[in-house]
Amino acid sequence: MREFIPPAARFIDLPAEFAMRRGGRLTGARIAYETFGRLTPERDNAVLILTGLSPDAHAASHPADTDPGWWEAMVGPGKPVDTDRWYVICLNSLGSCKGSTGPASLDPSTGEPYGPGFPDLSMEDIADAAAHTVRALGVDRAACVIGTSMGGMSSLSLLARHPDLARSHINICGAASALPFSIAIRSLQREAIRCDPQWNQGRYDDVNYPRRGMFTARKLGMMTYRSALEWDDRFGRARIAPEDRTDDDPFGHEFQVEGYLERHARRFAHRFDPNSYLCLSRCMDRFDLGESCGGSTDEALSRIRLEKALVIGVETDILFPLRQQQQIADGLAAGGTDVEFLAMDSPEGHDAFLIDTVRFGTPVSKFLTTL
Amino acid sequence: MREFIPPAARFIDLPAEFAMRRGGRLTGARIAYETFGRLTPERDNAVLILTGLSPDAHAASHPADTDPGWWEAMVGPGKPVDTDRWYVICLNSLGSCKGSTGPASLDPSTGEPYGPGFPDLSMEDIADAAAHTVRALGVDRAACVIGTSMGGMSSLSLLARHPDLARSHINICGAASALPFSIAIRSLQREAIRCDPQWNQGRYDDVNYPRRGMFTARKLGMMTYRSALEWDDRFGRARIAPEDRTDDDPFGHEFQVEGYLERHARRFAHRFDPNSYLCLSRCMDRFDLGESCGGSTDEALSRIRLEKALVIGVETDILFPLRQQQQIADGLAAGGTDVEFLAMDSPEGHDAFLIDTVRFGTPVSKFLTTL
Repeated sequence: MREFIPPAARFIDLPAEFAMRRGGRLTGARIAYETFGRLTPERDNAVLILTGLSPDAHAASHPADTDPGWWEAMVGPGKPVDTDRWYVICLNSLGSCKGSTGPASLDPSTGEPYGPGFPDLSMEDIADAAAHTVRALGVDRAACVIGTSMGGMSSLSLLARHPDLARSHINICGAASALPFSIAIRSLQREAIRCDPQWNQGRYDDVNYPRRGMFTARKLGMMTYRSALEWDDRFGRARIAPEDRTDDDPFGHEFQVEGYLERHARRFAHRFDPNSYLCLSRCMDRFDLGESCGGSTDEALSRIRLEKALVIGVETDILFPLRQQQQIADGLAAGGTDVEFLAMDSPEGHDAFLIDTVRFGTPVSKFLTTL
Repeated sequence: MREFIPPAARFIDLPAEFAMRRGGRLTGARIAYETFGRLTPERDNAVLILTGLSPDAHAASHPADTDPGWWEAMVGPGKPVDTDRWYVICLNSLGSCKGSTGPASLDPSTGEPYGPGFPDLSMEDIADAAAHTVRALGVDRAACVIGTSMGGMSSLSLLARHPDLARSHINICGAASALPFSIAIRSLQREAIRCDPQWNQGRYDDVNYPRRGMFTARKLGMMTYRSALEWDDRFGRARIAPEDRTDDDPFGHEFQVEGYLERHARRFAHRFDPNSYLCLSRCMDRFDLGESCGGSTDEALSRIRLEKALVIGVETDILFPLRQQQQIADGLAAGGTDVEFLAMDSPEGHDAFLIDTVRFGTPVSKFLTTL
């Protein structure tokens, strides 16, 4: 079990005993974050970014870590999330393995990683830990909370549970609850890891590691992050050159799309902790803003108080389909928020916000300018 | 390794030595079929049905086997494929495990099942075996060839390779070539089977059987056969009742959609031979009517000569997406065939033709009436 902490990550301690929604407790837990730009003396220019399942807090390069971040094109001086104006805080989610306390972190009561003993995690815990972190950084009211993918879920949870913490919100490819197709995909991903004999009920190590299970989970992920249309153009029916084939199994990989998935899977498998993956994945399935607030999802959305919001979805997204962003936009608008809703026809699917940054940059930049 | 032969299946022997396109040969191979209705003395009322990957030749009940067939609502007296008028022949594909020779059949040279030694199968072999069978049943020219799903691929291959064998064609949720998203899905399905330690390079038995791999393959299949929209209505976020949970794994099944997939997977896993599944699955990936005919897919379609054709696709189909049926319709029309193209907005996805038989029945019935 390993953590993968970006070199310039800093940390905020959660309360010594952090009580979790489903009954567990964490002792001495912490949240990893990075900041970009400067907080004004009035402390009114903070923009919080909550991420999807796999990214860390390193959203973009900065002097302390010049490596490109996962949203490099979007965050920086003069970029759509302009760090000349905004004090940007990017958080790693509680339960992750990238610096915030999660299953790969040491349990102070045993001196060993939590592993499968990590307490049952919920989206509300991720939101509460984020709210604590923002306040600990001296921000009582952020100008905007930006949430992408899973971060679109934790953002909504944060806004519902901490009503004064933000003036505005940008929700990109997010959702107010998990739908059955997405649950089924994630269930299969978890099953692939759980059924790998090397998973060993969560007690693996670097040698005995559920590599194949992680491969399958990542491949399934890649299939839902992009879109079929993009792949038609990109791969078509092109074959892997015989000298590039990685196996001679008669049922082995033959088409370039198979090689592409295999390469991505190999890159990911040893860069994310399997127990952490399982926790965050299940936590997404269980998320429903309505259940969380006691009422319907639509009602819960309408009770969120914001000055304004920008909600963006992608027509080719099959994991967080467009009707979920439409629901967020309608729900927030029903509560009186001034909402702009954008349906992008990008062929890049769920991951479009990571790729098609030219098209996402313009509305994000415009929205932030008006704050 | 087991075959699953419907009780009333009959058989046509292929030529004593059946030469396969990729170099293999089958000795003493046969094709399982069932017929419905009677052939006219003029032998001009035959309708051939070529199936998807998993169905057998038992399309509908008849006196010799009163069990409902896989297309019961569509085939029978007074039904859309009206057996009072048509002599319907439904074939089990070469390579399947439902009566036609496939990996689970005995290899006469060894007296053991072919297993992983079954020769490399192509869609063209399935088509040639079907053409031989139809002719052996005394039909030189069928009134119509109906192909559904994979059967839509083998039909096109048959029509291209045996130009005089049919007057008309109904292609339902078929494709003239495999696209990368579908290839990726099938690749993952095959990988799940191949990576199950019990697969044992194709040398499993009923006790040491790649059960988990078949489960995953089937679940992935189910996810692409239906549509996300249908599941929203059907399952929403409903949980499995605690007393119905099949495991107490903390990451085990919790939502009804997960229970549904598990039940389907368990039903399927021991009713289809894994080696046969691998062969047919790969054969679909490799299919491209253009490659097969030496030219582009569109050109190959335009060279097919038919009086008329009906092409039906479903807007929510992600496995054989609508643009593939549009391609078939356009390609056939470019060659001078009188083509009707229907895009169904059914929420049932790829499997809509098995479920939404009311809506599929009308155009099929109308088309056949005009022949």
